[in-house]
Amino acid sequence: MSEESENIQFQLTDELVEQVELFIEQKNDKELKTLLDEFHYADIAEILDELNLEEAVYVIKLLDSETTSDILMEMDEDNREKVLKNLSAKEIAEEVEELDTDDAADIIAELSEARQQAVIDQIEDEEHKAEITELLAYDEDTAGGLMAKELVKVYETWTVAGCMRRIRGQAKEVTRVHSIYVVNKEEKLIGRLSLKDLIVAKSEQKISDLVKVNVDYVKVNDDAEDVAKVMAKYDLEAIPVVDENQILLGRITIDDIVDVLKEEADKDYQMAAGITGDVEADDTILELTRARLPWLFLGLLGGIGAFIIMEGFQEAFSKYAVLFFFTPLIAAMAGNVGVQSSAIIVQGLANDDVKGSVNGRLIKEMLLAALNGVILAIFLFLFVWLYKGEIDKALAISVSLVAVIIIAGLIGTFVPLFLDKRGVDPAIATGPFITTSNDILGILLYFWIAKMILGI
Amino acid sequence: MSEESENIQFQLTDELVEQVELFIEQKNDKELKTLLDEFHYADIAEILDELNLEEAVYVIKLLDSETTSDILMEMDEDNREKVLKNLSAKEIAEEVEELDTDDAADIIAELSEARQQAVIDQIEDEEHKAEITELLAYDEDTAGGLMAKELVKVYETWTVAGCMRRIRGQAKEVTRVHSIYVVNKEEKLIGRLSLKDLIVAKSEQKISDLVKVNVDYVKVNDDAEDVAKVMAKYDLEAIPVVDENQILLGRITIDDIVDVLKEEADKDYQMAAGITGDVEADDTILELTRARLPWLFLGLLGGIGAFIIMEGFQEAFSKYAVLFFFTPLIAAMAGNVGVQSSAIIVQGLANDDVKGSVNGRLIKEMLLAALNGVILAIFLFLFVWLYKGEIDKALAISVSLVAVIIIAGLIGTFVPLFLDKRGVDPAIATGPFITTSNDILGILLYFWIAKMILGI
Repeated sequence: MSEESENIQFQLTDELVEQVELFIEQKNDKELKTLLDEFHYADIAEILDELNLEEAVYVIKLLDSETTSDILMEMDEDNREKVLKNLSAKEIAEEVEELDTDDAADIIAELSEARQQAVIDQIEDEEHKAEITELLAYDEDTAGGLMAKELVKVYETWTVAGCMRRIRGQAKEVTRVHSIYVVNKEEKLIGRLSLKDLIVAKSEQKISDLVKVNVDYVKVNDDAEDVAKVMAKYDLEAIPVVDENQILLGRITIDDIVDVLKEEADKDYQMAAGITGDVEADDTILELTRARLPWLFLGLLGGIGAFIIMEGFQEAFSKYAVLFFFTPLIAAMAGNVGVQSSAIIVQGLANDDVKGSVNGRLIKEMLLAALNGVILAIFLFLFVWLYKGEIDKALAISVSLVAVIIIAGLIGTFVPLFLDKRGVDPAIATGPFITTSNDILGILLYFWIAKMILGI
Repeated sequence: MSEESENIQFQLTDELVEQVELFIEQKNDKELKTLLDEFHYADIAEILDELNLEEAVYVIKLLDSETTSDILMEMDEDNREKVLKNLSAKEIAEEVEELDTDDAADIIAELSEARQQAVIDQIEDEEHKAEITELLAYDEDTAGGLMAKELVKVYETWTVAGCMRRIRGQAKEVTRVHSIYVVNKEEKLIGRLSLKDLIVAKSEQKISDLVKVNVDYVKVNDDAEDVAKVMAKYDLEAIPVVDENQILLGRITIDDIVDVLKEEADKDYQMAAGITGDVEADDTILELTRARLPWLFLGLLGGIGAFIIMEGFQEAFSKYAVLFFFTPLIAAMAGNVGVQSSAIIVQGLANDDVKGSVNGRLIKEMLLAALNGVILAIFLFLFVWLYKGEIDKALAISVSLVAVIIIAGLIGTFVPLFLDKRGVDPAIATGPFITTSNDILGILLYFWIAKMILGI
C-alpha cells in the first residue's frame, strides 16, 4: 500500500490549519500546494472551513479548478456562498465546467439571480451550458432537482460490440457508470443494462436481447423524498428520470440520496428539539436565535397559560396547597408521554411503517398509556401516602396522573396522524408544540379531576 | 415501457392483502404465484408483514428460494425471526445459498446458536459456507460485520485483456461490480480500477499501469459508524476491507451504509424523545412499554424532586403564593432550552461539525441563552407587571428566568460534550434526561434567586 493512501482517520488539527495559514501569509504557493496535494478534496474543504474568507479565497484561486470545484461542493454552504461572492463570474464558470451537471446547477442556484446569468454566459461548453440551464428550471425538491444529465445511453438496435465502442466515448464524461440506459429511437426509456452484463455478453449479441425491461424509474416532478424512499427500499444505486412521455432525461445516484435522507433526518431531529431551519452548531448566535426563540416563546406562552389555570384554582384549593407542588410533575409527565407517542408516529410515518386505521392506533396508544400510567400512578400513590399520610390527596393525584398520561398519549398519537392526512409535515407536531399543549391540558385536567375526587 | 415495470407508487392496500389471503385459503398456488410475480421482492415483503405467521410461511414455502431469500431480507426483523422458526435448517440453508455472504451471515446470526450450526452444516457450497463462517466471527458493529466476501479481484501483473477474461467468471457471482480491486501476489490491496477504466483502456495494457493506488480502505475492526461517515464524506459507493497486514478481506457497499445511517438517525431521534431500544410503531404494547416506561419513571422522580423543593420553600413564600404558579413555566423553559442546546451539540458531534474548544462552545451558548433569556424575560416582566401590578414579583420572576435559561443552556451544552469525551454516546443526554435534570435545577434556582431579590 502506498504511503500516500488516504487515511480513514483524517484529523483536522490546529497545527495543520496553522501551517496552511502560515504558508498563505508567506505567499509560499509551492509548499502550500505540496501540502494540500496530499489531502482528499473533502478534507481540504474541512481545512478551508476553518480559514477566514480571504485565506479560503486565496487557496481556491491557487489550486486548479478540477480540485477546487470538488472542494467547493464539500464546503459548508455558508462559507461557500462567501467564497463565491469573492470570485468573478468567469472564475465561477471555470469551476462549474469541471462539475457534473447536478452539482453545477446546485452551485449556480445558490447565486443571486443576476449573477446566475452572468456565470452561465461564461460557460464555454455549449452542451454543458444547455444542460445546466435545463436543470436550473426544476424545483430543487423534485427528482429533476436531484438528477444529473451525465449518463450512458444506448439504442436497443445496437450490438454489444458496437455498444462497447460507442460507450467508450460517453463513459469518459460520466464519473460512475452504474447502469447503461437503453432507449428506443424516440429516446423513450426501454430498460437498462449493467456494464457487467455487457462484459459477460458475447460481442455479436443485440442490446434488445440483453436489456432488462423491468426497470425502476421516477418522473421528473416526483418529490425528492419519495425518490429517496424508493431508492433506499429497492436498494438502487441509480435511477433514471423520465418526463411524462417516458423520454429519458437524466439519472439520480445514491450519493445524492444519502444527502437527502441525512437532511431529512437532521430536520426531523431538530424539529423534535424545538429548532427550526437548517442550523448547525457553528452558525452565528443570531441564526441560532432565529431558529430557537420562536419555540421558546411558545413555551413561555404555555407557561403563562399554566399560571392562569393555577391562579384560577387557587381559591378552590386553598386548603390543599400541596396539590400545587405536583404541577411540575404532572406537566413533565404529560410532556414526556406526548413526545414519546408523537415521535413513534412521526418516525413510523417517515419509514412507511404506520399501517392500519387511525382508530386502531389510538386504541393501542390508550392501552399503552394506561399500562404505563397505572404503574407510575401506583408508585406516586405510595410515595404521597407514605410521605404525607393523606390517602385522599394521594388518590386524587394518582388518578389524575393516569388520566393525564392517557390523554397526553392520545394527543401525541392523533396530532401527527391528523397533520399527515392533511398533507402537513407531522414532524412539526413533536417537541415544544406537543410538550406545551400537553403541559397546559395536563395541568387543567389534573386540577379538574382532583377537584372532583376531593369533592371541592 | 413495458406494462410490468415496477411502479414507484406501490401502495399496500387492504384489497391486495385480502386477495393474497384468499388465494392462500383456497390453496390456489397458481394464481397466488402469478399475482406475486408482478411485485418486487421488497413489495412482497411488505405484503408478508401484513399476513399472519402461517400465511407468511405458506408464501415463503411456495415461491422459489431465489425470490424468498430477498423477501426475507426485506421483512420486518420480528416477523422474519418467526418465519425462520417455522423453516427447517435445510430450508433456511437453501435461502442462505441464494444470498450474498453479508446478508447470509446476518440471517444466520439471528438464529439461536444451536440452529446456526445446523443451518451452516446444510449449506452445500463449501466456499460459501467457509465465507459465511468467517463473517459470523466479526462483531456486527464493525467493518467486518458489514462486509461481503463477493468482490472482483485482479492481480497487478495481469493485462487488460487477460483481466477481462478472468473477471467474466468472477463478475457472475457479484451482484454489483463497483470497483475491481487490485492485489499483489501476497493478496495485499494495491489499489483499484473501475469497470469503466477497463473498458476505456487498450487490451494490451498492464493492470499495474492503470491501477489507482490512492484508494480508500477500512480495517476489518473499524467501527461501523465510522465506516458510514467515511463513505458518506468521500461519496464512496464501495470500500475495500483489509486486515492488519493489508490483506484484502471483503468490501462494503453503500446500500449497507444507507441502513447504518438510517438506524443511527432513528436511534438518536428516539433517544431524544425518551425511547430506548429499537422499537417501531407496530411493536407490541409490552415492547413499547419496556422502551418508554424507564424514561417516564425518571420524569416521575424528577417531578417528586420538584415537589420536595417547592414544599421546602412553602413557608418562606407563604406571602408570595403567586410565585408557585410560575414553576411550570420555569420548568418548561429550562427543559426546552436544555433540549435545544443538547440537540445542536449531539447533531454537531454526529456530523463532525463541532470543532474548537469546550470553553468556546460554553461561552457561545451562554451568550445565546442570555440573548434569548433577556428577550423572553422582558415579555414575562411586562405580563406579570401589567397583569398583577406587582413590580417586585415581576422583577424576581424575570431575573430568575434569565438565570435559569443560561444555566439550562450551559448544562445542555456541557453534558453531551462531556459524555462524548468520556466515550459515551452523547445522544443519551438529550430528551428526558436533560429535561428532568433541568426541571429540578431550574425550579431550585428560581426560588433561590426570587428569595434573594424579594429579600425573604
